[in-house]
This record gives sequence, C-alpha cells and structure tokens, in this order.
Amino acid sequence: MQHLIPLDNLVAALSRLPGIGRRTAERMAMTLVQDEKGLMRILANTLLEADDGIDSCERCGSVTLSAINPCELCTRHRKDAHILCVVESPGDIIKIEESGGFQGRYHALMGRLSPMFGTGAADLRVDTLLARISDEGISEVLIALGTDVESEATSSYLKEVLSTRDVKVSRIAFGLPAGSAIEYSDAATLSRAIKGRQDI
Amino acid sequence: MQHLIPLDNLVAALSRLPGIGRRTAERMAMTLVQDEKGLMRILANTLLEADDGIDSCERCGSVTLSAINPCELCTRHRKDAHILCVVESPGDIIKIEESGGFQGRYHALMGRLSPMFGTGAADLRVDTLLARISDEGISEVLIALGTDVESEATSSYLKEVLSTRDVKVSRIAFGLPAGSAIEYSDAATLSRAIKGRQDI
Repeated sequence: MQHLIPLDNLVAALSRLPGIGRRTAERMAMTLVQDEKGLMRILANTLLEADDGIDSCERCGSVTLSAINPCELCTRHRKDAHILCVVESPGDIIKIEESGGFQGRYHALMGRLSPMFGTGAADLRVDTLLARISDEGISEVLIALGTDVESEATSSYLKEVLSTRDVKVSRIAFGLPAGSAIEYSDAATLSRAIKGRQDI
Repeated sequence: MQHLIPLDNLVAALSRLPGIGRRTAERMAMTLVQDEKGLMRILANTLLEADDGIDSCERCGSVTLSAINPCELCTRHRKDAHILCVVESPGDIIKIEESGGFQGRYHALMGRLSPMFGTGAADLRVDTLLARISDEGISEVLIALGTDVESEATSSYLKEVLSTRDVKVSRIAFGLPAGSAIEYSDAATLSRAIKGRQDI
C-alpha cells in the first residue's frame, strides 16, 4: 500500500492525546478522512482558535481567555479570598468550581512530586505559591490533592514548606464518596473515613 | 466560572470523534491546553495537511494522496486484477492490504444497508461497482463484509444485483479466528465454521 504521509502524521499526532492508542488514532483518522461534514477542518480550526484564544492564567495556572489574564477567578470578588486552594492541575480547578463547594482562590502546582517521572519540587509552582501567600494576604492554604503516593508526598512537602509561614494549612477530607455504602468501600477508604471522623 | 468559548468549541469538536464522550473530550482539551510542546498547533497543522493532502479515490473509495487519484491500488499492476473485493469502508481496504492476503482490486461501498440509520441501496456505491465490473473486465466479486445483520443484508442485496451480471460472486470465509480454540468460541462462530467446513 502506498505511504500516505499526511495520514501517518495525523495518526501520530492523535496518538499523543491522553488515552489514545495507535488503533484508536487510526480509527479517528479514518473517520476524519471520510467525514462529509468537514469535521477535519472544523477540528483544525477549533484547535487553532483555542491555541490563540486560551492561555494559562499567569497567577493561578488555570485556563483563561488570552485577553483576560490574570483570570476572573483570581481577580473577581470571592467570599473566601483569604483561602488558597492548591491543586495539581487546571482541570482540578474546573472540577472544584463546578462542585460549588469553594469560594476562595486557586493555585495549580502543574504536577506533583514524582521521582518516577522525574518531577521534583523545582518543577512545581511552589515559589509563586509562597509569593501569593504574602502578596494576597492568604490566611489558609487548603491542599486539594488526591490519595495516591505522589499526591501524599506532595502534600507532605507542601506542609513542610508552609510550616515556616504564618498560615493555616488544611487538606480536603477523605472518606466515603457521596452515594456510597460501607458495603462497597475498600479498606483504605474506610480506615481514612474512620480516622477523619467528626462529632455530630 | 467564566465561559471559555474556544475551549467549549474544542471540547464539542473532539466529542464528534468516534468513541469519544464528553468527559474524554474535556480531558483531551485540558491536555492540549497545558501541553508545552505545542501539541495543539501540531495537531491542527496535521489536520489541515491531511485535509489538503488526502482524498477519497474516485474509483475504489480508498484513501489516497490528493495528487494521485485514482489511487495506486486501482492503477498499479495487481496479480488478481480481475477480482474485485467489495468492502464497507476505506479502513477495511487498509486492513486487507496489511494482511497481504489479497492481490486484486477494491471497491468500498461507503456503508451498509441499515434501515435503522436510514442507509438504503441508493446511498451505497453500487452503480459505480456495476460500472467497474464491465469497464475493468472483472470476473469475480469477492464480498468482504462482516457477519452482523446489516452486513448480511448488504451481502444478500449485492448477490441479487450481481446475479444479473456475468460474474462469479464469492464471500470471505467465516469460522474460527486464527489462534482461537473451540473452547472459547461462541455458538454462532462454531456453527458457521462447521457449515463452511472444507475437505482436507
């Protein structure tokens, strides 16, 4: 079969998307080639527009319109502006915002400590975090990281770094997820839920 | 949270890819926004290049370089050029070519009969199939369609249409897949394998 370089390049680029293997990328490419509604060009244009129109917020690291930087989350009135919620990535900020459960400011570390992937403390946005604590008069840092090994290590590291500052450090609660039952919970979740028990 | 129209548009376009739900599209979009190696623009450019450089072969329906149409599969010497292999889509042509098991010409119907999705005989490339049979001196049409209901209906329809032509009509064999065992085969596969038994 003849070599279709543009098709090969497309498959290679699609394969770089998260969770997309070569097979899926090939299927996507074929769908795009055959699509009669111009999906190929539509997708290309939305990518170009997003590349031009979307930026990382220079302050919190969230996604924002290129024209609005720092982003609205950083500049608009927030009831709990003295609380800074530290997350791993911009996607986490969107998640927490959608939950409606937080009214403070955000700070994305852009990663977590991971010796396996060569991510050290210097690769995380910790300097800017410290700068913001004083600049913005932050009185509480809420660590919203997961429960995997890297997130735990990152939390410990942050706790240590922040201990030198005059700031309260908290962490989101771990326990039974909403709608879940004891019956279906694993041992680790249950033991964390018991350890984190609260008076009622 | 502010409304990021370019991001929303990107998620919407990515959601139109096969097998990509809203959640996956959101994750892809966030990866693209955060990617520091310019994946967003790379992907956009490969899409534009593929849109410009790749076309459907006007003869067999396969994918081909825009500059080479009809495609090489249609024009280059093929040992069994008198056998025309009918498939559903261009992707099937690539699959069969990769198998190395066929040395004739191809013809993609661009679909299969499906009342549920409103695909009728007029939507398939049957007229061009009939024209090619006489134009190219085809002596055998090999139907390479699957075993689902729509493919069976399409095969029956083709058999009927082709019965008026002086051409042999064959269909690929169905039976145990390579490397499989009786133990793990389902009833339908086994009964087709027995029905299609061959002398040894």
